[in-house]
Amino acid sequence: MEGAMTDRDTLLAGNAAFYSAFQRGDYEAMASLWALENSISCVHPGWPALIGRDAVMGSWHAILGGGANGPISFHDCNAILTGREGRVLCIESIGGHLLQATNIFHQILGSWKLVHHQSSPIAVEEEQETPPSAVVN
Amino acid sequence: MEGAMTDRDTLLAGNAAFYSAFQRGDYEAMASLWALENSISCVHPGWPALIGRDAVMGSWHAILGGGANGPISFHDCNAILTGREGRVLCIESIGGHLLQATNIFHQILGSWKLVHHQSSPIAVEEEQETPPSAVVN
Repeated sequence: MEGAMTDRDTLLAGNAAFYSAFQRGDYEAMASLWALENSISCVHPGWPALIGRDAVMGSWHAILGGGANGPISFHDCNAILTGREGRVLCIESIGGHLLQATNIFHQILGSWKLVHHQSSPIAVEEEQETPPSAVVN
Repeated sequence: MEGAMTDRDTLLAGNAAFYSAFQRGDYEAMASLWALENSISCVHPGWPALIGRDAVMGSWHAILGGGANGPISFHDCNAILTGREGRVLCIESIGGHLLQATNIFHQILGSWKLVHHQSSPIAVEEEQETPPSAVVN
């Protein structure tokens, strides 16, 4: 049917909703995007893994507790669909830092729900800012 | 049946085989652990995502090309099984660095095959080495 959304469209819409909730600091929206199961897992940059609904949502409550986190953007999305699993790999830009994220969704009762998020810093090989010169008098 | 391996046992054995191949620098073993599909993805520490069999296996060929990478160890494994997906979260210790890894396997023709690996540095809050003091005469 022309105009109907494909699974890929709805998967990418779920991924966009994740970053929208993140940027707005909207915990309720974030909580609704994750599966209710205790099989969810999340690896924030620099953190060891959090596993289970309480640990994962507790971390998001703390992260989003301060309100809006903007500006957050994401680009270079690759959506990989296999059966009821949808994996989105994208580059996040958060506070000027680039991170490689993997967001894994499962199709549960007709909706894509997050079951895993991992975000890790990308080593950017670009011109470094000149360090402050050591002034020794 | 007493003594039979469960799906969790074989999943964790697959995860151990990954680190064994990594440490031994055994590219052929590593190649056999990954699914043949182009839907595989891999995020090495500091790298953007690699997607597809050629890109992922090319990176492992380069990484393992120098032979053994030891010592590599892993601990704190958590295995999460949902349907034909097995997700293992564990902490890697590579060259004295700690990383949080997520290894995702799909059960394909009765075997667990890797479809995604992401490894990201953990910020360890331990006593830093004392920085060289600025000696100004």
